[in-house]
Amino acid sequence: MTIKRKKISVIGAGFTGATTAFLVSQKELGDVVLVDIPQMEGPTKGKGLDMLEATPILNASVNVVGTSDYKDTADSDIVVITAGIARKPGMSRDDLVSTNAKIMKDVTRQVVEYSPNCTIVVLTNPADAMTYTVYKESGFPKNRVIGQSGVLDTGRFRTFVAQELNLSVEDITGFVLGGHGDDMVPLLRYSYAGGIPLEKLISKDRLDEIVERTRKGGGEIVNLLGNGSAYYAPAASLTQMVEAIVKDKRRILPAIAYLEGEYGYNDLYLGVPVVLGGNGIEKVIELDLTDEEKQALNKSVESVKNVMSAL
Amino acid sequence: MTIKRKKISVIGAGFTGATTAFLVSQKELGDVVLVDIPQMEGPTKGKGLDMLEATPILNASVNVVGTSDYKDTADSDIVVITAGIARKPGMSRDDLVSTNAKIMKDVTRQVVEYSPNCTIVVLTNPADAMTYTVYKESGFPKNRVIGQSGVLDTGRFRTFVAQELNLSVEDITGFVLGGHGDDMVPLLRYSYAGGIPLEKLISKDRLDEIVERTRKGGGEIVNLLGNGSAYYAPAASLTQMVEAIVKDKRRILPAIAYLEGEYGYNDLYLGVPVVLGGNGIEKVIELDLTDEEKQALNKSVESVKNVMSAL
Amino acid sequence: MTIKRKKISVIGAGFTGATTAFLVSQKELGDVVLVDIPQMEGPTKGKGLDMLEATPILNASVNVVGTSDYKDTADSDIVVITAGIARKPGMSRDDLVSTNAKIMKDVTRQVVEYSPNCTIVVLTNPADAMTYTVYKESGFPKNRVIGQSGVLDTGRFRTFVAQELNLSVEDITGFVLGGHGDDMVPLLRYSYAGGIPLEKLISKDRLDEIVERTRKGGGEIVNLLGNGSAYYAPAASLTQMVEAIVKDKRRILPAIAYLEGEYGYNDLYLGVPVVLGGNGIEKVIELDLTDEEKQALNKSVESVKNVMSAL
Amino acid sequence: MTIKRKKISVIGAGFTGATTAFLVSQKELGDVVLVDIPQMEGPTKGKGLDMLEATPILNASVNVVGTSDYKDTADSDIVVITAGIARKPGMSRDDLVSTNAKIMKDVTRQVVEYSPNCTIVVLTNPADAMTYTVYKESGFPKNRVIGQSGVLDTGRFRTFVAQELNLSVEDITGFVLGGHGDDMVPLLRYSYAGGIPLEKLISKDRLDEIVERTRKGGGEIVNLLGNGSAYYAPAASLTQMVEAIVKDKRRILPAIAYLEGEYGYNDLYLGVPVVLGGNGIEKVIELDLTDEEKQALNKSVESVKNVMSAL
Repeated sequence: MTIKRKKISVIGAGFTGATTAFLVSQKELGDVVLVDIPQMEGPTKGKGLDMLEATPILNASVNVVGTSDYKDTADSDIVVITAGIARKPGMSRDDLVSTNAKIMKDVTRQVVEYSPNCTIVVLTNPADAMTYTVYKESGFPKNRVIGQSGVLDTGRFRTFVAQELNLSVEDITGFVLGGHGDDMVPLLRYSYAGGIPLEKLISKDRLDEIVERTRKGGGEIVNLLGNGSAYYAPAASLTQMVEAIVKDKRRILPAIAYLEGEYGYNDLYLGVPVVLGGNGIEKVIELDLTDEEKQALNKSVESVKNVMSAL
Repeated sequence: MTIKRKKISVIGAGFTGATTAFLVSQKELGDVVLVDIPQMEGPTKGKGLDMLEATPILNASVNVVGTSDYKDTADSDIVVITAGIARKPGMSRDDLVSTNAKIMKDVTRQVVEYSPNCTIVVLTNPADAMTYTVYKESGFPKNRVIGQSGVLDTGRFRTFVAQELNLSVEDITGFVLGGHGDDMVPLLRYSYAGGIPLEKLISKDRLDEIVERTRKGGGEIVNLLGNGSAYYAPAASLTQMVEAIVKDKRRILPAIAYLEGEYGYNDLYLGVPVVLGGNGIEKVIELDLTDEEKQALNKSVESVKNVMSAL
Repeated sequence: MTIKRKKISVIGAGFTGATTAFLVSQKELGDVVLVDIPQMEGPTKGKGLDMLEATPILNASVNVVGTSDYKDTADSDIVVITAGIARKPGMSRDDLVSTNAKIMKDVTRQVVEYSPNCTIVVLTNPADAMTYTVYKESGFPKNRVIGQSGVLDTGRFRTFVAQELNLSVEDITGFVLGGHGDDMVPLLRYSYAGGIPLEKLISKDRLDEIVERTRKGGGEIVNLLGNGSAYYAPAASLTQMVEAIVKDKRRILPAIAYLEGEYGYNDLYLGVPVVLGGNGIEKVIELDLTDEEKQALNKSVESVKNVMSAL
Repeated sequence: MTIKRKKISVIGAGFTGATTAFLVSQKELGDVVLVDIPQMEGPTKGKGLDMLEATPILNASVNVVGTSDYKDTADSDIVVITAGIARKPGMSRDDLVSTNAKIMKDVTRQVVEYSPNCTIVVLTNPADAMTYTVYKESGFPKNRVIGQSGVLDTGRFRTFVAQELNLSVEDITGFVLGGHGDDMVPLLRYSYAGGIPLEKLISKDRLDEIVERTRKGGGEIVNLLGNGSAYYAPAASLTQMVEAIVKDKRRILPAIAYLEGEYGYNDLYLGVPVVLGGNGIEKVIELDLTDEEKQALNKSVESVKNVMSAL
């Protein structure tokens, strides 16, 4: 039986989408199709070609192509959605939500038409609501529609802790539940350096500052850049999720998953720890929460529901 | 004796510089300092921080920092220069050359002040003339000032050949001499697929088209992007050169090297095959050229000299 | 559609088989099943478990298991056969051939029973005859039965050339046709350092010595070890072939392929350049040979046929 | 300033030493010198050459050499000691200790003569006592003499937990203190799957079985192999420690470190969490222990001291 190279499509050729496509190709996870709207066809093709021209130098035997035609995404194994607009000055949050929801629906229809068996990973903000939108529009089983938020949030948290302790990032872990950024619920008691609870290594005040910096981590980058938002760490996060699925790794990662009773919630996409493998979300991992954590998670859920009410 | 992590500084935080910094950090070649002018301090810091926040997700134990202060580059092992402007509509080529030469001199002075023992790799266009400028300004021995052009040119050539033959890029090699892009002198007789000379696998006409496409490869991306130029393949090229030096690999790669009699030229930076290792350019490899190749190289040298006359 | 981790079985848990299993697991090419005869069940399980216990340290999310039960190989994507005996003092070559042929038939029957759709890569010596035996016994199409010899022979050649020139092995290529070791037909005109024909860089006499050393490369290791034969480079060779197939890379590699008219031979397995991808041997690449090369290849074929006459 | 490739010597060319040398070369951590006694010169050279012949296939630009002459180890950055005998039937433990101590002294003298600035990593059993012996003989500062035990013990523990939970090994962590194997003191409260304490995921009884299996992990492999002991996971452990030092990573890893008051012990080498970087042991991390843990550690220390009394 023939072995076919895997195929990963990335919808949205902005900085995050393009960087994700580049990382996926560099890691030889499969052939890559980078897609954007027809008005952006030139730049999308240009980025795809530029990435392809990097493959010989990187020793990566994959194809990369930029396109505005969803036909080129046919039979993708995984589709990553980064399309959507960023909130502009003067735009209400509800306007942002409804605009991006419209984009999600449009993208999803075309993705599903050409790759009815794919697994979808959603980055577009607000990620909880947008993943829900894609789920509904796709008609896919819940395990095959997944949102990104926690890998990025814990990535930032781990960075700040590693700096604080002057240690390798490889040995720092973090743990979050709930919404992205401001709404995240960090579980400090499940966050460690070399397995040692951070609360034993860093003062409570300093840890609170690190959590707060993590919460505002996206905004910190936005403010520094002046124009645009973070894309290296978000692209690395998406790539890690794609790799866990393509290689059927069964990793425990935080992801936005559809809940049917877990943690007491229903018909909702929320950030929780999951097992990520060849079936997408293989399992949602439930944890006992303290009252305080439960309260914080409820607040986060309220915030997510609030956003979704604009749909 | 203590082992200290290597340090690589990248001057110029535009797309190519930033992507180079990202690749160097991801490959754990050393700590990375990304530098741009004070007016760009915010975005430079933002990009550096975003890359740093990707390190835990990529399992890379290095530091990355964006800055406008050359002090932060102190004691770099390698400095990559990508700073400079692109030619704008209405700008004469001489204006481009003199503007970028001025930038090179300014950058070099600061690089040398803080890292008197580093090796410098130059990308800024026109690369032959700019590498020469950096060499003169630095006062460094010739082995420690190197320009990039051939890794990128052959990367593009290999991509087009791999597509033509539907083969892995890993087994296609190319060979160029002389200036970058339009001025390059491809040695087709030294270009292979799996060791088989391409001339046995692809018709002469088709090969000529591929060579022509390679020559115009930079322009093809510029035209597609509409705004800006290629950066993924250029950054991969720079990273490969940095890796060869940091790991003291003694690889044969095409690079822009200072000639003192080799190929019959003197006091000139030109694209030639070199041995790249811990000393930078360990050796220039000289080849016997056919009359036709010699003529083409002469023409390429004339073009380089022409550019340098604007200095 | 679910993505399932690939599965690679390695038959023969001696040094080469075990090292191959280890490399395949380390590179996360898929789950690994290491198989040996029931009398060796303990050591085989021990090696498999030891490798599995290395996976967390190597960050490799795959399973490894040692077994003597072919049921555990069920639905393998690729099966590597390293089983067989080495020639012992006093044993005639014909005895070696017929003993290993018997082992090949027995192994193949069981491999085919449990993995009717797999691709088989054969290492056992004499590799040309053993690959032929496996091909006949399996009833598989010719593209799915492949022998190893040229990757190892050129690996040794490249090593000796890199030492001679004090250059990175990454930029040295070699090219061989025909049988393994003594019978190999090196094509020096297709062997390069950084694309430059070796004949321009190394004297003819020295090159002849390097070719001769390559021919005797297996014996050199046997003599040094005193007991047993090479396994690191052979295992690396097998792993490279497995990777080319699992990742559907379409690489040009030398391999033992079934010929039906190519190079003027029929119903014969012989070392030739092939395109290796998801279908196994995607294509045999034919080259024009000089009279001298043609003669040498004929001699090599005679030698292969001689061995096969013992079957 | 020239960048010189790092140099790592491995003393003892048995299975663990050879596999370590192979992994270090494959990961391009530096040039590798594999050393054994003059009587084993042939096999040692054979293994080194076989590994070197794998480098072109693995794209690794390093040198590997087998030798019985310590001169070849001159100016090593890191030296790994795997030399020593295994306990044979009928041999008393005291005999084992004194024999291996003699070997350690002899090896150390020669290592120090040729590489007075290196960092030494010791594997030889009993590792606590042997690391102490090397420390005393070398006259090196304590940070530059380190023993391996915990990376291997936690590697085994992580493997068994990953199997129990059907999860990727990448997200399982373990934590041990004290002696190797039987004497290890596992800190289950610091052992996690995806950050979740294992005690919440696995029943106490089952966890106890897993701990017990880990304790006997070395013996399990010995029993299966019938002849010889584990080497894949031990070699991976050594390689991870070498990588942390060569790349100056500042990782938190369990290692055998010299204690001067930490945990209440003095003039003793014991398994504790350390920060491993370019200076070797950058820091010993002290933890508050429960009474039960403290008792277990005391027992482990008694056992270590008992062994050392044979010195």
